[in-house]
Amino acid sequence: MTTSLPLLTTDESCHCAPVTAGVMDVEDAQRLAWMFKALGDPTRVRLLSMIAAQSGGEACVCDLTEPVGLAQPTVSHHMKQLVDAGLVTREQRGKWAYYALVPEALAMLSAVLDPWPSRVGGNSSC
Amino acid sequence: MTTSLPLLTTDESCHCAPVTAGVMDVEDAQRLAWMFKALGDPTRVRLLSMIAAQSGGEACVCDLTEPVGLAQPTVSHHMKQLVDAGLVTREQRGKWAYYALVPEALAMLSAVLDPWPSRVGGNSSC
Repeated sequence: MTTSLPLLTTDESCHCAPVTAGVMDVEDAQRLAWMFKALGDPTRVRLLSMIAAQSGGEACVCDLTEPVGLAQPTVSHHMKQLVDAGLVTREQRGKWAYYALVPEALAMLSAVLDPWPSRVGGNSSC
Repeated sequence: MTTSLPLLTTDESCHCAPVTAGVMDVEDAQRLAWMFKALGDPTRVRLLSMIAAQSGGEACVCDLTEPVGLAQPTVSHHMKQLVDAGLVTREQRGKWAYYALVPEALAMLSAVLDPWPSRVGGNSSC
């Protein structure tokens, strides 16, 4: 997908109309699809889980390369897609880039996929 | 992605170790990425929301073409990807195909993305 979407801010990402609540407009669908597409790769799913497993939900790129068995440029390329989708933030500290989860974005995706929002709390995570 | 993964059954799809709970193994990551990739297209997100909006969470392909403004073969192609990912079932009734959501698969994806599983009920949707 080459469509360029703005990075999500916390407020914008907290857009919790469930996929299962009715027909979605084109703009919302584009925003969601962009985020799901970033998750549509096994390496990126694993990278996200590795960041989440770190203390504080943050990881140095130097700690991500060995577990996935890929060179740092390749890992950085995957991470850029997660950053562009608003699922992760990136901060440069000296030589290394550090990545942290954006819990609000993950919570929003979780909420829109929930087929029983009233049963498990629905939008309460926003 | 050309990797062929088996269709998910209800039991298999209820695999709720959150993405945010630790490092995910390769097989789980492949299964999740396959499902997220199916959602990584705005038309498929809208089709899913349209099916969810129908009474009983089921829709005839004949009712899906006009709202997305696409020909039936194109809609059927998109729907096949949602079916292959285990997010939707397909049933042929006479001339028309009918599609229904797989709530357990959506609930599983919702659960794995939940950054605060203990706060909103976590695996209770399984």
